[in-house]
Amino acid sequence: MQAFLSRLKTGQAHIEAALQTALRPHLPELLWEAMAYSALDGGKRIRPVLMQLTTEALGADPDLATPAACALELIHCYSLVHDDLPALDNDDWRRGRPSNHRQFGEATAILAGDALLTYAFELCTAPGPLSAEVRIVVAHEIARAAGPHGMCGGQMLDMQLDPRAPLGPDTLAHMYALKTGQLLRVAVRCGAIIGGATPAQLQALTTYAEQLGVAFQIIDDILDLTGTLDSLGKTPQKDVHQQKYTYPQVYGLAPAQEMGRACVKAALTALHEATLPAPEWLEAIAHYLTERQA
Amino acid sequence: MQAFLSRLKTGQAHIEAALQTALRPHLPELLWEAMAYSALDGGKRIRPVLMQLTTEALGADPDLATPAACALELIHCYSLVHDDLPALDNDDWRRGRPSNHRQFGEATAILAGDALLTYAFELCTAPGPLSAEVRIVVAHEIARAAGPHGMCGGQMLDMQLDPRAPLGPDTLAHMYALKTGQLLRVAVRCGAIIGGATPAQLQALTTYAEQLGVAFQIIDDILDLTGTLDSLGKTPQKDVHQQKYTYPQVYGLAPAQEMGRACVKAALTALHEATLPAPEWLEAIAHYLTERQA
Repeated sequence: MQAFLSRLKTGQAHIEAALQTALRPHLPELLWEAMAYSALDGGKRIRPVLMQLTTEALGADPDLATPAACALELIHCYSLVHDDLPALDNDDWRRGRPSNHRQFGEATAILAGDALLTYAFELCTAPGPLSAEVRIVVAHEIARAAGPHGMCGGQMLDMQLDPRAPLGPDTLAHMYALKTGQLLRVAVRCGAIIGGATPAQLQALTTYAEQLGVAFQIIDDILDLTGTLDSLGKTPQKDVHQQKYTYPQVYGLAPAQEMGRACVKAALTALHEATLPAPEWLEAIAHYLTERQA
Repeated sequence: MQAFLSRLKTGQAHIEAALQTALRPHLPELLWEAMAYSALDGGKRIRPVLMQLTTEALGADPDLATPAACALELIHCYSLVHDDLPALDNDDWRRGRPSNHRQFGEATAILAGDALLTYAFELCTAPGPLSAEVRIVVAHEIARAAGPHGMCGGQMLDMQLDPRAPLGPDTLAHMYALKTGQLLRVAVRCGAIIGGATPAQLQALTTYAEQLGVAFQIIDDILDLTGTLDSLGKTPQKDVHQQKYTYPQVYGLAPAQEMGRACVKAALTALHEATLPAPEWLEAIAHYLTERQA
Protein backbone atom coordinates (compact mmCIF):
# COMPACT_ATOMS: atom_id res chain seq x y z
CA MET A 1 0.00 0.00 0.00
CA GLN A 2 2.91 2.39 0.71
CA ALA A 3 4.10 2.15 -2.92
CA PHE A 4 0.56 2.79 -4.13
CA LEU A 5 0.13 5.83 -1.89
CA SER A 6 3.29 7.25 -3.37
CA ARG A 7 2.04 6.55 -6.93
CA LEU A 8 -1.31 8.10 -6.03
CA LYS A 9 0.40 11.23 -4.74
CA THR A 10 2.41 11.58 -7.96
CA GLY A 11 -0.76 11.08 -10.00
CA GLN A 12 -2.68 13.65 -7.99
CA ALA A 13 0.15 16.18 -8.30
CA HIS A 14 0.28 15.59 -12.05
CA ILE A 15 -3.47 16.22 -12.44
CA GLU A 16 -3.30 19.22 -10.13
CA ALA A 17 -0.58 20.80 -12.28
CA ALA A 18 -2.50 20.11 -15.49
CA LEU A 19 -5.69 21.60 -14.05
CA GLN A 20 -3.77 24.64 -12.82
CA THR A 21 -2.44 25.20 -16.32
CA ALA A 22 -5.89 24.71 -17.85
CA LEU A 23 -7.46 27.11 -15.36
CA ARG A 24 -4.90 29.90 -15.25
CA PRO A 25 -6.67 33.28 -15.18
CA HIS A 26 -8.33 34.58 -18.34
CA LEU A 27 -10.96 37.23 -19.00
CA PRO A 28 -13.61 37.60 -17.71
CA GLU A 29 -11.63 37.29 -14.50
CA LEU A 30 -14.51 36.59 -12.15
CA LEU A 31 -15.78 33.66 -14.23
CA TRP A 32 -12.37 31.98 -14.35
CA GLU A 33 -11.86 32.71 -10.67
CA ALA A 34 -15.16 31.01 -9.83
CA MET A 35 -14.28 28.06 -12.08
CA ALA A 36 -10.85 27.68 -10.47
CA TYR A 37 -12.33 28.06 -6.98
CA SER A 38 -14.32 24.86 -7.43
CA ALA A 39 -11.85 22.95 -9.57
CA LEU A 40 -8.61 23.71 -7.68
CA ASP A 41 -9.81 23.07 -4.18
CA GLY A 42 -7.91 20.04 -2.98
CA GLY A 43 -10.21 17.42 -4.47
CA LYS A 44 -8.89 13.86 -4.34
CA ARG A 45 -8.77 13.54 -8.16
CA ILE A 46 -10.01 9.94 -7.94
CA ARG A 47 -11.53 9.86 -11.43
CA PRO A 48 -8.63 11.35 -13.39
CA VAL A 49 -6.06 9.28 -11.48
CA LEU A 50 -8.14 6.16 -12.08
CA MET A 51 -8.17 6.98 -15.80
CA GLN A 52 -4.41 7.41 -15.93
CA LEU A 53 -3.75 4.25 -13.90
CA THR A 54 -5.92 2.30 -16.34
CA THR A 55 -3.92 3.59 -19.30
CA GLU A 56 -0.74 2.67 -17.42
CA ALA A 57 -2.08 -0.80 -16.54
CA LEU A 58 -2.29 -1.48 -20.28
CA GLY A 59 1.38 -0.63 -20.66
CA ALA A 60 0.84 2.81 -22.25
CA ASP A 61 2.06 6.25 -21.14
CA PRO A 62 -0.49 7.54 -18.57
CA ASP A 63 0.19 11.11 -19.70
CA LEU A 64 -1.69 10.34 -22.93
CA ALA A 65 -4.84 10.37 -20.79
CA THR A 66 -4.18 13.78 -19.18
CA PRO A 67 -6.57 15.94 -21.31
CA ALA A 68 -9.47 13.49 -20.99
CA ALA A 69 -8.68 12.99 -17.29
CA CYS A 70 -8.80 16.74 -16.66
CA ALA A 71 -12.02 17.00 -18.66
CA LEU A 72 -13.62 14.32 -16.51
CA GLU A 73 -12.50 16.03 -13.31
CA LEU A 74 -13.95 19.37 -14.48
CA ILE A 75 -17.26 17.61 -15.14
CA HIS A 76 -17.17 16.15 -11.64
CA CYS A 77 -16.46 19.64 -10.26
CA TYR A 78 -19.26 21.33 -12.24
CA SER A 79 -21.71 18.72 -11.00
CA LEU A 80 -20.82 19.57 -7.40
CA VAL A 81 -21.22 23.32 -8.04
CA HIS A 82 -24.70 22.86 -9.49
CA ASP A 83 -25.62 20.18 -6.94
CA ASP A 84 -24.87 22.57 -4.08
CA LEU A 85 -27.20 25.30 -5.44
CA PRO A 86 -30.15 26.38 -3.27
CA ALA A 87 -32.68 24.87 -5.72
CA LEU A 88 -30.91 21.49 -5.53
CA ASP A 89 -29.09 20.28 -2.39
CA ASN A 90 -28.75 23.79 -0.92
CA ASP A 91 -25.39 23.03 0.62
CA ASP A 92 -23.28 25.85 2.07
CA TRP A 93 -20.07 23.85 2.42
CA ARG A 94 -17.85 21.89 0.10
CA ARG A 95 -14.41 20.49 0.87
CA GLY A 96 -14.16 22.62 4.01
CA ARG A 97 -14.92 25.93 2.27
CA PRO A 98 -18.08 27.88 1.38
CA SER A 99 -19.73 26.33 -1.67
CA ASN A 100 -19.42 28.21 -4.97
CA HIS A 101 -22.73 30.07 -4.76
CA ARG A 102 -21.99 31.07 -1.16
CA GLN A 103 -18.69 32.54 -2.31
CA PHE A 104 -19.67 34.12 -5.65
CA GLY A 105 -23.48 34.30 -5.67
CA GLU A 106 -25.96 32.06 -7.41
CA ALA A 107 -25.79 33.59 -10.90
CA THR A 108 -22.01 33.26 -11.10
CA ALA A 109 -22.14 29.72 -9.68
CA ILE A 110 -24.61 28.63 -12.37
CA LEU A 111 -22.42 30.19 -15.07
CA ALA A 112 -19.21 28.79 -13.61
CA GLY A 113 -20.74 25.30 -13.63
CA ASP A 114 -21.85 25.71 -17.24
CA ALA A 115 -18.40 27.01 -18.14
CA LEU A 116 -16.58 24.11 -16.43
CA LEU A 117 -18.78 21.59 -18.25
CA THR A 118 -18.27 23.20 -21.65
CA TYR A 119 -14.56 23.76 -21.07
CA ALA A 120 -14.21 20.04 -20.29
CA PHE A 121 -15.20 19.29 -23.88
CA GLU A 122 -12.90 22.00 -25.17
CA LEU A 123 -10.01 20.24 -23.39
CA CYS A 124 -10.71 16.69 -24.47
CA THR A 125 -11.35 17.58 -28.12
CA ALA A 126 -8.21 19.73 -28.45
CA PRO A 127 -5.39 18.64 -30.78
CA GLY A 128 -2.85 16.38 -29.05
CA PRO A 129 -0.77 13.24 -29.38
CA LEU A 130 -3.81 10.92 -29.54
CA SER A 131 -5.37 10.19 -32.94
CA ALA A 132 -8.64 11.90 -33.88
CA GLU A 133 -10.29 8.45 -33.81
CA VAL A 134 -9.36 7.90 -30.16
CA ARG A 135 -10.17 11.47 -29.10
CA ILE A 136 -13.64 11.42 -30.65
CA VAL A 137 -14.51 8.07 -29.03
CA VAL A 138 -13.27 9.32 -25.67
CA ALA A 139 -15.20 12.61 -25.94
CA HIS A 140 -18.33 10.69 -26.89
CA GLU A 141 -17.94 8.27 -23.97
CA ILE A 142 -17.52 11.18 -21.55
CA ALA A 143 -20.53 13.07 -22.93
CA ARG A 144 -22.73 10.00 -22.73
CA ALA A 145 -21.63 9.20 -19.17
CA ALA A 146 -22.20 12.76 -17.97
CA GLY A 147 -25.45 13.57 -19.79
CA PRO A 148 -29.11 12.60 -19.57
CA HIS A 149 -28.33 8.89 -20.17
CA GLY A 150 -25.79 9.09 -17.35
CA MET A 151 -25.02 11.45 -14.47
CA CYS A 152 -27.72 14.06 -15.24
CA GLY A 153 -30.28 11.27 -15.46
CA GLY A 154 -29.10 9.94 -12.10
CA GLN A 155 -29.41 13.34 -10.49
CA MET A 156 -32.96 13.56 -11.74
CA LEU A 157 -33.77 10.10 -10.34
CA ASP A 158 -32.21 11.11 -7.04
CA MET A 159 -34.42 14.21 -6.89
CA GLN A 160 -37.48 12.12 -7.65
CA LEU A 161 -36.88 9.48 -4.96
CA ASP A 162 -39.64 10.03 -2.44
CA PRO A 163 -38.34 9.31 1.09
CA ARG A 164 -41.87 8.54 2.24
CA ALA A 165 -42.61 6.03 -0.54
CA PRO A 166 -41.43 2.39 -0.43
CA LEU A 167 -38.28 1.75 -2.44
CA GLY A 168 -38.35 -0.70 -5.39
CA PRO A 169 -35.68 -3.44 -5.21
CA ASP A 170 -33.14 -2.03 -7.68
CA THR A 171 -34.13 1.64 -7.55
CA LEU A 172 -31.26 2.75 -5.32
CA ALA A 173 -28.65 0.79 -7.28
CA HIS A 174 -29.96 2.12 -10.59
CA MET A 175 -29.96 5.73 -9.40
CA TYR A 176 -26.41 5.47 -8.08
CA ALA A 177 -25.20 3.59 -11.17
CA LEU A 178 -26.12 6.71 -13.13
CA LYS A 179 -25.50 9.49 -10.63
CA THR A 180 -22.06 8.49 -9.38
CA GLY A 181 -21.24 5.20 -11.12
CA GLN A 182 -21.08 6.53 -14.67
CA LEU A 183 -18.15 8.89 -14.11
CA LEU A 184 -16.04 6.17 -12.46
CA ARG A 185 -17.02 3.75 -15.20
CA VAL A 186 -16.08 6.16 -17.95
CA ALA A 187 -12.79 6.99 -16.20
CA VAL A 188 -11.76 3.37 -16.55
CA ARG A 189 -13.22 2.94 -20.04
CA CYS A 190 -11.46 6.04 -21.41
CA GLY A 191 -8.20 5.00 -19.76
CA ALA A 192 -8.59 1.60 -21.39
CA ILE A 193 -9.41 2.99 -24.83
CA ILE A 194 -6.46 5.40 -24.67
CA GLY A 195 -4.23 2.53 -23.53
CA GLY A 196 -5.28 0.44 -26.53
CA ALA A 197 -7.39 -2.20 -24.75
CA THR A 198 -8.80 -5.11 -26.76
CA PRO A 199 -12.63 -5.42 -26.77
CA ALA A 200 -12.39 -8.24 -24.20
CA GLN A 201 -10.14 -6.18 -21.94
CA LEU A 202 -12.48 -3.19 -22.27
CA GLN A 203 -15.42 -5.33 -21.28
CA ALA A 204 -13.69 -6.84 -18.24
CA LEU A 205 -12.45 -3.42 -17.15
CA THR A 206 -15.98 -2.03 -17.49
CA THR A 207 -17.22 -4.68 -15.05
CA TYR A 208 -14.31 -3.85 -12.74
CA ALA A 209 -15.31 -0.17 -12.83
CA GLU A 210 -19.01 -0.84 -12.29
CA GLN A 211 -18.39 -3.00 -9.24
CA LEU A 212 -15.85 -0.52 -7.91
CA GLY A 213 -18.42 2.25 -8.39
CA VAL A 214 -21.01 0.48 -6.25
CA ALA A 215 -18.45 -0.21 -3.53
CA PHE A 216 -17.31 3.42 -3.66
CA GLN A 217 -20.87 4.66 -3.24
CA ILE A 218 -21.64 2.34 -0.35
CA ILE A 219 -18.55 3.64 1.48
CA ASP A 220 -19.63 7.20 0.67
CA ASP A 221 -23.03 6.59 2.23
CA ILE A 222 -21.44 4.99 5.29
CA LEU A 223 -18.96 7.85 5.72
CA ASP A 224 -21.76 10.39 5.39
CA LEU A 225 -23.46 8.62 8.30
CA THR A 226 -20.42 8.12 10.52
CA GLY A 227 -18.05 10.97 9.56
CA THR A 228 -17.64 14.53 10.86
CA LEU A 229 -17.31 17.91 9.12
CA ASP A 230 -13.61 17.81 10.02
CA SER A 231 -12.93 14.33 8.65
CA LEU A 232 -15.06 14.80 5.49
CA GLY A 233 -14.59 18.51 4.73
CA LYS A 234 -18.30 18.68 3.94
CA THR A 235 -21.53 18.61 5.91
CA PRO A 236 -21.98 15.11 7.42
CA GLN A 237 -25.33 13.36 7.90
CA LYS A 238 -26.52 15.36 4.91
CA ASP A 239 -28.39 12.32 3.59
CA VAL A 240 -30.21 11.89 6.90
CA HIS A 241 -31.20 15.55 7.04
CA GLN A 242 -32.36 15.49 3.45
CA GLN A 243 -34.19 12.22 4.14
CA LYS A 244 -32.40 10.50 1.30
CA TYR A 245 -32.29 6.79 0.74
CA THR A 246 -28.79 5.38 1.26
CA TYR A 247 -27.26 1.90 1.41
CA PRO A 248 -26.83 1.75 5.22
CA GLN A 249 -30.28 3.23 5.77
CA VAL A 250 -31.97 0.75 3.42
CA TYR A 251 -29.95 -2.38 4.26
CA GLY A 252 -28.44 -1.62 7.68
CA LEU A 253 -24.81 -0.67 8.42
CA ALA A 254 -23.22 -4.12 8.67
CA PRO A 255 -25.02 -5.61 5.62
CA ALA A 256 -24.06 -2.52 3.60
CA GLN A 257 -20.43 -3.02 4.60
CA GLU A 258 -20.71 -6.65 3.52
CA MET A 259 -22.20 -5.59 0.16
CA GLY A 260 -19.28 -3.23 -0.31
CA ARG A 261 -16.76 -6.01 0.31
CA ALA A 262 -18.58 -8.29 -2.18
CA CYS A 263 -18.38 -5.59 -4.85
CA VAL A 264 -14.65 -5.13 -4.34
CA LYS A 265 -14.21 -8.88 -4.71
CA ALA A 266 -16.22 -8.89 -7.95
CA ALA A 267 -14.19 -5.93 -9.21
CA LEU A 268 -10.92 -7.73 -8.53
CA THR A 269 -12.15 -10.89 -10.27
CA ALA A 270 -13.04 -8.87 -13.38
CA LEU A 271 -9.67 -7.12 -13.21
CA HIS A 272 -7.95 -10.52 -13.15
CA GLU A 273 -9.95 -11.56 -16.22
CA ALA A 274 -8.73 -8.51 -18.13
CA THR A 275 -5.19 -10.03 -18.10
CA LEU A 276 -3.45 -6.66 -18.18
CA PRO A 277 0.32 -6.28 -18.44
CA ALA A 278 0.41 -4.27 -15.17
CA PRO A 279 -2.77 -4.58 -13.09
CA GLU A 280 -1.13 -3.79 -9.71
CA TRP A 281 -2.21 -0.14 -9.28
CA LEU A 282 -5.78 -0.92 -10.31
CA GLU A 283 -5.85 -3.62 -7.66
CA ALA A 284 -4.42 -1.26 -5.08
CA ILE A 285 -6.81 1.59 -5.88
CA ALA A 286 -9.78 -0.75 -5.40
CA HIS A 287 -8.60 -1.47 -1.87
CA TYR A 288 -7.69 2.15 -1.27
CA LEU A 289 -11.07 3.53 -2.36
CA THR A 290 -13.05 1.12 -0.26
CA GLU A 291 -10.95 1.34 2.89
CA ARG A 292 -10.80 5.14 2.94
CA GLN A 293 -11.97 7.27 5.88
CA ALA A 294 -12.94 10.40 3.87
CA MET B 1 -36.71 36.17 -51.23
CA GLN B 2 -39.65 33.80 -51.89
CA ALA B 3 -37.30 30.99 -52.95
CA PHE B 4 -35.19 31.58 -49.85
CA LEU B 5 -38.20 31.49 -47.53
CA SER B 6 -39.11 28.15 -49.04
CA ARG B 7 -35.54 26.85 -48.55
CA LEU B 8 -35.57 28.18 -44.99
CA LYS B 9 -38.82 26.37 -44.25
CA THR B 10 -37.40 23.08 -45.57
CA GLY B 11 -34.26 23.60 -43.49
CA GLN B 12 -36.23 24.36 -40.35
CA ALA B 13 -38.44 21.30 -40.86
CA HIS B 14 -35.36 19.14 -41.34
CA ILE B 15 -33.76 20.37 -38.10
CA GLU B 16 -37.08 20.04 -36.27
CA ALA B 17 -37.38 16.39 -37.31
CA ALA B 18 -33.78 15.65 -36.33
CA LEU B 19 -34.27 17.29 -32.93
CA GLN B 20 -37.50 15.38 -32.41
CA THR B 21 -35.68 12.12 -33.06
CA ALA B 22 -32.82 13.12 -30.77
CA LEU B 23 -35.24 14.13 -28.01
CA ARG B 24 -37.78 11.31 -28.14
CA PRO B 25 -38.75 10.28 -24.60
CA HIS B 26 -36.27 8.28 -22.51
CA LEU B 27 -35.95 7.61 -18.80
CA PRO B 28 -36.02 9.54 -16.54
CA GLU B 29 -39.13 10.83 -18.26
CA LEU B 30 -39.36 14.19 -16.51
CA LEU B 31 -35.80 15.15 -17.44
CA TRP B 32 -36.32 14.37 -21.13
CA GLU B 33 -39.69 16.10 -21.03
CA ALA B 34 -38.10 19.25 -19.61
CA MET B 35 -35.31 19.06 -22.21
CA ALA B 36 -37.80 18.63 -25.05
CA TYR B 37 -40.01 21.42 -23.67
CA SER B 38 -37.26 23.96 -24.24
CA ALA B 39 -35.73 22.45 -27.37
CA LEU B 40 -38.91 21.63 -29.33
CA ASP B 41 -40.72 24.88 -28.82
CA GLY B 42 -40.95 26.45 -32.23
CA GLY B 43 -37.57 28.16 -32.16
CA LYS B 44 -36.48 29.66 -35.47
CA ARG B 45 -33.46 27.31 -35.79
CA ILE B 46 -31.34 30.15 -37.17
CA ARG B 47 -28.00 28.69 -36.09
CA PRO B 48 -28.47 25.11 -37.34
CA VAL B 49 -29.99 26.28 -40.63
CA LEU B 50 -27.11 28.73 -41.07
CA MET B 51 -24.66 25.86 -40.54
CA GLN B 52 -26.38 23.68 -43.11
CA LEU B 53 -26.65 26.50 -45.65
CA THR B 54 -22.91 27.12 -45.28
CA THR B 55 -22.15 23.46 -45.97
CA GLU B 56 -24.46 23.63 -48.98
CA ALA B 57 -22.85 26.88 -50.21
CA LEU B 58 -19.60 24.96 -50.50
CA GLY B 59 -21.27 22.39 -52.73
CA ALA B 60 -21.54 19.64 -50.11
CA ASP B 61 -24.60 17.77 -48.80
CA PRO B 62 -26.11 19.94 -46.01
CA ASP B 63 -27.29 16.81 -44.20
CA LEU B 64 -23.66 16.09 -43.29
CA ALA B 65 -23.96 19.00 -40.87
CA THR B 66 -27.14 17.75 -39.15
CA PRO B 67 -25.59 16.29 -35.96
CA ALA B 68 -23.39 19.34 -35.35
CA ALA B 69 -26.29 21.65 -36.26
CA CYS B 70 -28.58 19.95 -33.73
CA ALA B 71 -25.82 20.09 -31.12
CA LEU B 72 -25.45 23.83 -31.64
CA GLU B 73 -29.20 24.35 -31.37
CA LEU B 74 -29.34 22.38 -28.10
CA ILE B 75 -26.58 24.60 -26.73
CA HIS B 76 -28.55 27.68 -27.73
CA CYS B 77 -31.62 26.20 -26.00
CA TYR B 78 -29.76 25.31 -22.80
CA SER B 79 -28.39 28.85 -22.62
CA LEU B 80 -31.93 30.24 -22.72
CA VAL B 81 -33.11 27.85 -19.99
CA HIS B 82 -30.31 28.89 -17.65
CA ASP B 83 -30.55 32.56 -18.68
CA ASP B 84 -34.22 32.66 -17.68
CA LEU B 85 -33.54 31.35 -14.16
CA PRO B 86 -34.48 33.58 -11.20
CA ALA B 87 -30.80 34.10 -10.27
CA LEU B 88 -30.03 35.32 -13.80
CA ASP B 89 -32.57 37.15 -15.97
CA ASN B 90 -35.57 35.92 -13.94
CA ASP B 91 -37.81 35.68 -16.98
CA ASP B 92 -41.19 33.95 -16.75
CA TRP B 93 -41.84 33.78 -20.48
CA ARG B 94 -40.04 32.30 -23.46
CA ARG B 95 -41.41 31.93 -26.97
CA GLY B 96 -44.95 32.59 -25.77
CA ARG B 97 -44.93 29.92 -23.04
CA PRO B 98 -43.86 29.77 -19.39
CA SER B 99 -40.08 29.51 -19.15
CA ASN B 100 -38.63 26.12 -18.17
CA HIS B 101 -38.28 26.81 -14.44
CA ARG B 102 -41.83 28.20 -14.34
CA GLN B 103 -43.08 24.98 -15.91
CA PHE B 104 -40.89 22.38 -14.16
CA GLY B 105 -39.38 24.14 -11.15
CA GLU B 106 -35.90 25.53 -10.71
CA ALA B 107 -34.06 22.31 -9.87
CA THR B 108 -35.34 20.50 -12.96
CA ALA B 109 -34.62 23.54 -15.14
CA ILE B 110 -30.99 23.65 -13.98
CA LEU B 111 -30.64 19.89 -14.63
CA ALA B 112 -32.43 20.08 -18.00
CA GLY B 113 -30.05 22.84 -19.09
CA ASP B 114 -27.02 20.81 -17.99
CA ALA B 115 -28.44 17.76 -19.78
CA LEU B 116 -29.08 19.67 -23.04
CA LEU B 117 -25.52 21.03 -23.00
CA THR B 118 -23.95 17.64 -22.36
CA TYR B 119 -26.23 15.87 -24.81
CA ALA B 120 -25.14 18.35 -27.48
CA PHE B 121 -21.62 16.95 -27.22
CA GLU B 122 -22.95 13.40 -27.22
CA LEU B 123 -24.66 14.15 -30.55
CA CYS B 124 -21.78 15.85 -32.35
CA THR B 125 -19.18 13.28 -31.28
CA ALA B 126 -21.32 10.26 -32.26
CA PRO B 127 -20.21 8.00 -35.13
CA GLY B 128 -21.49 9.17 -38.51
CA PRO B 129 -20.55 9.76 -42.14
CA LEU B 130 -18.02 12.50 -41.33
CA SER B 131 -14.42 11.47 -40.63
CA ALA B 132 -13.18 11.48 -37.04
CA GLU B 133 -10.82 14.33 -38.01
CA VAL B 134 -13.71 16.57 -39.08
CA ARG B 135 -15.93 15.60 -36.14
CA ILE B 136 -13.26 16.33 -33.54
CA VAL B 137 -12.47 19.74 -35.05
CA VAL B 138 -16.17 20.60 -35.17
CA ALA B 139 -16.77 19.47 -31.57
CA HIS B 140 -13.76 21.51 -30.44
CA GLU B 141 -14.97 24.61 -32.31
CA ILE B 142 -18.41 24.29 -30.72
CA ALA B 143 -17.03 23.78 -27.21
CA ARG B 144 -14.73 26.78 -27.53
CA ALA B 145 -17.51 29.00 -28.88
CA ALA B 146 -19.94 28.00 -26.12
CA GLY B 147 -17.58 27.95 -23.14
CA PRO B 148 -15.72 30.46 -20.97
CA HIS B 149 -13.77 31.83 -23.97
CA GLY B 150 -17.11 32.29 -25.78
CA MET B 151 -20.76 32.42 -24.82
CA CYS B 152 -20.33 31.74 -21.07
CA GLY B 153 -17.71 34.48 -20.94
CA GLY B 154 -20.10 36.85 -22.69
CA GLN B 155 -22.88 36.07 -20.24
CA MET B 156 -20.53 36.89 -17.39
CA LEU B 157 -19.54 40.20 -19.04
CA ASP B 158 -23.22 41.00 -19.55
CA MET B 159 -23.92 40.39 -15.86
CA GLN B 160 -21.01 42.59 -14.89
CA LEU B 161 -22.01 45.58 -17.05
CA ASP B 162 -23.02 48.25 -14.60
CA PRO B 163 -25.89 50.30 -16.05
CA ARG B 164 -24.88 53.25 -13.86
CA ALA B 165 -21.23 53.26 -14.93
CA PRO B 166 -20.02 54.86 -18.18
CA LEU B 167 -19.52 52.37 -21.00
CA GLY B 168 -16.06 51.92 -22.53
CA PRO B 169 -15.95 52.32 -26.33
CA ASP B 170 -15.85 48.64 -27.36
CA THR B 171 -17.34 47.09 -24.24
CA LEU B 172 -20.80 46.48 -25.69
CA ALA B 173 -19.46 45.07 -28.96
CA HIS B 174 -17.04 42.79 -27.10
CA MET B 175 -19.72 41.47 -24.75
CA TYR B 176 -22.09 40.73 -27.62
CA ALA B 177 -19.34 39.21 -29.76
CA LEU B 178 -18.98 36.58 -27.05
CA LYS B 179 -22.52 36.28 -25.70
CA THR B 180 -24.42 35.98 -28.96
CA GLY B 181 -21.83 36.36 -31.74
CA GLN B 182 -19.85 33.21 -31.00
CA LEU B 183 -22.68 30.75 -31.70
CA LEU B 184 -23.50 32.36 -35.05
CA ARG B 185 -19.79 32.49 -35.90
CA VAL B 186 -19.29 28.83 -35.05
CA ALA B 187 -22.43 27.86 -37.01
CA VAL B 188 -20.80 29.22 -40.15
CA ARG B 189 -17.33 27.94 -39.32
CA CYS B 190 -18.55 24.38 -38.66
CA GLY B 191 -20.68 24.44 -41.80
CA ALA B 192 -17.60 25.55 -43.72
CA ILE B 193 -15.32 22.91 -42.20
CA ILE B 194 -17.87 20.18 -42.88
CA GLY B 195 -18.27 21.47 -46.44
CA GLY B 196 -14.52 21.25 -47.01
CA ALA B 197 -13.67 24.97 -47.12
CA THR B 198 -10.12 26.03 -47.93
CA PRO B 199 -8.34 28.09 -45.23
CA ALA B 200 -9.01 31.29 -47.23
CA GLN B 201 -12.69 30.46 -47.58
CA LEU B 202 -12.93 29.66 -43.86
CA GLN B 203 -11.36 33.00 -43.02
CA ALA B 204 -13.68 34.99 -45.30
CA LEU B 205 -16.73 33.11 -44.02
CA THR B 206 -15.64 33.81 -40.44
CA THR B 207 -15.67 37.55 -41.21
CA TYR B 208 -19.07 37.14 -42.88
CA ALA B 209 -20.39 35.44 -39.73
CA GLU B 210 -18.90 37.99 -37.34
CA GLN B 211 -20.43 40.92 -39.21
CA LEU B 212 -23.73 39.10 -39.53
CA GLY B 213 -23.64 38.44 -35.79
CA VAL B 214 -23.30 42.12 -34.95
CA ALA B 215 -26.13 43.04 -37.33
CA PHE B 216 -28.29 40.28 -35.84
CA GLN B 217 -27.72 41.60 -32.32
CA ILE B 218 -28.44 45.20 -33.26
CA ILE B 219 -31.79 44.10 -34.73
CA ASP B 220 -32.46 42.04 -31.61
CA ASP B 221 -31.91 45.09 -29.44
CA ILE B 222 -34.12 47.22 -31.67
CA LEU B 223 -36.91 44.61 -31.68
CA ASP B 224 -36.72 44.32 -27.90
CA LEU B 225 -37.32 48.06 -27.77
CA THR B 226 -40.06 48.29 -30.38
CA GLY B 227 -41.74 44.84 -30.32
CA THR B 228 -44.67 43.45 -28.31
CA LEU B 229 -45.16 40.19 -26.38
CA ASP B 230 -47.35 39.02 -29.27
CA SER B 231 -44.87 39.81 -32.04
CA LEU B 232 -41.81 38.53 -30.13
CA GLY B 233 -43.26 35.65 -28.09
CA LYS B 234 -41.17 36.87 -25.15
CA THR B 235 -41.25 39.77 -22.74
CA PRO B 236 -40.50 43.00 -24.68
CA GLN B 237 -38.59 45.98 -23.27
CA LYS B 238 -36.78 43.48 -21.08
CA ASP B 239 -33.49 45.31 -21.62
CA VAL B 240 -35.04 48.61 -20.51
CA HIS B 241 -36.52 47.07 -17.37
CA GLN B 242 -33.28 45.33 -16.56
CA GLN B 243 -31.42 48.59 -17.29
CA LYS B 244 -29.16 46.85 -19.76
CA TYR B 245 -26.97 48.58 -22.26
CA THR B 246 -28.13 47.99 -25.85
CA TYR B 247 -27.17 49.37 -29.25
CA PRO B 248 -30.19 51.71 -29.66
CA GLN B 249 -29.88 52.90 -26.07
CA VAL B 250 -26.15 53.65 -26.39
CA TYR B 251 -26.10 55.01 -29.96
CA GLY B 252 -29.72 56.05 -30.61
CA LEU B 253 -32.27 54.19 -32.75
CA ALA B 254 -31.44 55.59 -36.20
CA PRO B 255 -27.63 55.35 -35.80
CA ALA B 256 -28.02 51.78 -34.52
CA GLN B 257 -30.06 50.92 -37.62
CA GLU B 258 -27.34 52.49 -39.75
CA MET B 259 -24.67 50.40 -37.95
CA GLY B 260 -26.72 47.29 -38.65
CA ARG B 261 -26.87 48.07 -42.36
CA ALA B 262 -23.11 48.68 -42.47
CA CYS B 263 -22.48 45.28 -40.87
CA VAL B 264 -24.69 43.51 -43.42
CA LYS B 265 -22.74 45.24 -46.18
CA ALA B 266 -19.42 44.12 -44.68
CA ALA B 267 -20.79 40.59 -44.30
CA LEU B 268 -21.79 40.46 -47.96
CA THR B 269 -18.40 41.79 -49.07
CA ALA B 270 -16.66 39.02 -47.10
CA LEU B 271 -19.07 36.45 -48.53
CA HIS B 272 -18.16 37.61 -52.03
CA GLU B 273 -14.47 37.22 -51.21
CA ALA B 274 -15.04 33.60 -50.17
CA THR B 275 -15.80 32.75 -53.84
CA LEU B 276 -18.15 29.89 -52.98
CA PRO B 277 -19.74 27.64 -55.60
CA ALA B 278 -23.25 28.55 -54.35
CA PRO B 279 -23.34 31.67 -52.13
CA GLU B 280 -26.98 32.59 -52.85
CA TRP B 281 -28.65 31.30 -49.67
CA LEU B 282 -25.96 32.83 -47.47
CA GLU B 283 -26.61 36.14 -49.15
CA ALA B 284 -30.36 35.74 -48.71
CA ILE B 285 -30.13 34.75 -45.03
CA ALA B 286 -28.09 37.87 -44.30
CA HIS B 287 -30.92 40.01 -45.64
CA TYR B 288 -33.55 37.84 -43.98
CA LEU B 289 -31.96 37.99 -40.52
CA THR B 290 -31.54 41.73 -40.57
CA GLU B 291 -34.95 42.60 -41.99
CA ARG B 292 -36.91 40.33 -39.63
CA GLN B 293 -39.67 41.59 -37.32
CA ALA B 294 -39.28 38.95 -34.56
